[in-house]
Amino acid sequence: MNEATRKQLESYLEKCESELDRVMNFWLTNSHDEKNGGFFVCLGRDGKVYDETKYCWLQGRQVWSYCKLYNNIPKYHTDAILNVAKRGGEFLMKYVKNPENNKCFFTVTKTGDPIKIQRSIFSECFYMIAMAELARATGEAKYKTEAVAMMDQLQHWVMVDDTALGHPRLSGSPAVNTLAVAMIFIILVEELAWDDAELREKYAPLEEWGLKQTMQHIQRNDEVILEVVSTDGNELPGSQGRVMNPGHAIETGWFLLQYAKKRNRPDLRDLAISQFMVKPFLTGWDKENGGILYFLDADGLSPTQLEWNMKLWWPHCEALIAFLMAYRETGEQQYLDYFKQVWDYTIKHFVDPEHGGWYGYLSKQGVVSQDFKGGPFKGFFHVPRCLFMCIGMLQELLK
Amino acid sequence: MNEATRKQLESYLEKCESELDRVMNFWLTNSHDEKNGGFFVCLGRDGKVYDETKYCWLQGRQVWSYCKLYNNIPKYHTDAILNVAKRGGEFLMKYVKNPENNKCFFTVTKTGDPIKIQRSIFSECFYMIAMAELARATGEAKYKTEAVAMMDQLQHWVMVDDTALGHPRLSGSPAVNTLAVAMIFIILVEELAWDDAELREKYAPLEEWGLKQTMQHIQRNDEVILEVVSTDGNELPGSQGRVMNPGHAIETGWFLLQYAKKRNRPDLRDLAISQFMVKPFLTGWDKENGGILYFLDADGLSPTQLEWNMKLWWPHCEALIAFLMAYRETGEQQYLDYFKQVWDYTIKHFVDPEHGGWYGYLSKQGVVSQDFKGGPFKGFFHVPRCLFMCIGMLQELLK
Repeated sequence: MNEATRKQLESYLEKCESELDRVMNFWLTNSHDEKNGGFFVCLGRDGKVYDETKYCWLQGRQVWSYCKLYNNIPKYHTDAILNVAKRGGEFLMKYVKNPENNKCFFTVTKTGDPIKIQRSIFSECFYMIAMAELARATGEAKYKTEAVAMMDQLQHWVMVDDTALGHPRLSGSPAVNTLAVAMIFIILVEELAWDDAELREKYAPLEEWGLKQTMQHIQRNDEVILEVVSTDGNELPGSQGRVMNPGHAIETGWFLLQYAKKRNRPDLRDLAISQFMVKPFLTGWDKENGGILYFLDADGLSPTQLEWNMKLWWPHCEALIAFLMAYRETGEQQYLDYFKQVWDYTIKHFVDPEHGGWYGYLSKQGVVSQDFKGGPFKGFFHVPRCLFMCIGMLQELLK
Repeated sequence: MNEATRKQLESYLEKCESELDRVMNFWLTNSHDEKNGGFFVCLGRDGKVYDETKYCWLQGRQVWSYCKLYNNIPKYHTDAILNVAKRGGEFLMKYVKNPENNKCFFTVTKTGDPIKIQRSIFSECFYMIAMAELARATGEAKYKTEAVAMMDQLQHWVMVDDTALGHPRLSGSPAVNTLAVAMIFIILVEELAWDDAELREKYAPLEEWGLKQTMQHIQRNDEVILEVVSTDGNELPGSQGRVMNPGHAIETGWFLLQYAKKRNRPDLRDLAISQFMVKPFLTGWDKENGGILYFLDADGLSPTQLEWNMKLWWPHCEALIAFLMAYRETGEQQYLDYFKQVWDYTIKHFVDPEHGGWYGYLSKQGVVSQDFKGGPFKGFFHVPRCLFMCIGMLQELLK
């Protein structure tokens, strides 16, 4: 590594550390419901709660994030952080999971009364990773038991029988393979079982299933990643079949690259980088205004998603992780250049130097369109995960 | 009326007539599924079908629009138009309504296989108005019988028991009063029964129910119209309770004004104009870029709807109807000025001089963000209804 690169990496590291402190401080200060437990996630620009609904994806994700930082970063290894993580975990177990059917609610009131259930499995996925990481943080077996039980339930839903999820079976809507459900199982198995060979073995078929399902999203002679394909791995007709979500493909890319490294699969490494990172990034980057577009249509038509040309925080977080990981794995300057391209846009547009916390939603032009720091789909997760992972990779590179 | 105003109204009339021709031509040419019946609604800028899914709100609305034009405008009173309307009606009866429970699907495939059901009642509302207007166009009793049966079903769902709609009953989500469900019953009763005193009498309680539910949306000392309130007419906590949709309030305004005129209710006339049209219009108009914003938060916070600051075609269509009607009813120049303000923006931004049909979705800055002419929620309805109604009102004013 030449001196210029070293200096550059050092400056990224410093900024990641200071941003993680600021973001952590914002959420520690503003999001805790001291009275009822759990987390407020609808936080305005200055941290004020503008809606007390508890979004359950984000309850689980916040527990996971606190535990991850507690378990890995010495300065966050404090009783205070462990305690809020545990309180969050207890709220999840008491109010978010319905013990009758293992479904988790999508939203509950501040006191835990259920508001809404989704027929998807994401509340349950984030419940599972929260419990898995909380088990490591506390050393308490009950959380791991809870995580394993939920993983078994998830495996049953996706590999055996999903009728309990309540999707109506209509003749015009055959089952489909969505990237969201496919790729998440790669990371779920990793999160639950990376330090437990027996569990890793147990869930190997589920991981293989996730990998296989994920690969089916490479379409059109390896040129694009499509979000939804048929269960036999073909492109679906109409707008649904043409949807591309570059940030989501890039996130899948680093899930795969991490997997490839751990399992020593160089073939998968190259595919992860070229198919899931580079091509979606080059297609999704807005040449006019910068930033990664949210949705695209593979034929270049107008996506039907009204928000298609907005710039969201999380695809940029995923791209930072992905290109830094690609650089670490290959040493190729190109990936560090892509990292820089995303970094410059991200720091300039999403960071709020005044109040801390990151914005989540920008117009195509890069103007903040929603000034809140937390909302129904934005909690304490993508930003700290990105900063935490980049810190780890930068430290490794600088060694 | 002075000469300048007359000239102005004549020019509006001329443009409305030519635009109606162009829009009509676009949909007649591009949207008919000759093979399977029903209508393709996903039409690209030049009319090419980009998705064959049949969105059922739009199937019903297109039948209604064709019949309305057939029944009221001599040049559209042709066998060709009657026949496509009938074919659309037959598709609705055969594929869209589930005779087992009277629920209508939200989407079906091009051949009529069901894809999706909503737990709301809008597919059924548009089914009903399609049948009601088709009965007038054809003189065939079976369509009216069908319309009345669906209206009875709708009345049962909203006034007696909605469990069959399938909303889960969760302790944290009490029933709410949404403006969408409230206001639609004012127009549904009008559409079904304006020429049938007996039916009008029969559904008077339903109409009263709709009126009463609608009035509960006037909140904060008559300053705002909120989209969702509690069933006892109070503001709900959080973002949901603060949502304002100016175009929707304005649409409600003309529903109410039309009702007030027909029932000779001058008190309601003034309230319709001041509360439902003028205040939402002045709040919703984008002072920076022009056009009516899609969603606002009553406290001035960022709406959580990502598309909140986009400019959609339909609020502009509703505002044109509303302010021309207010002008016709009061003769006050102010309302004609508001009409002009909306008109100038609308004609400049939504009309496609090249291919015909109107765009539906613009960015805050007024740039076309989706170039298609039809999509999952945009069919042949708001634009022809607006032009048809404006033509009628302009002709009346010019008499």
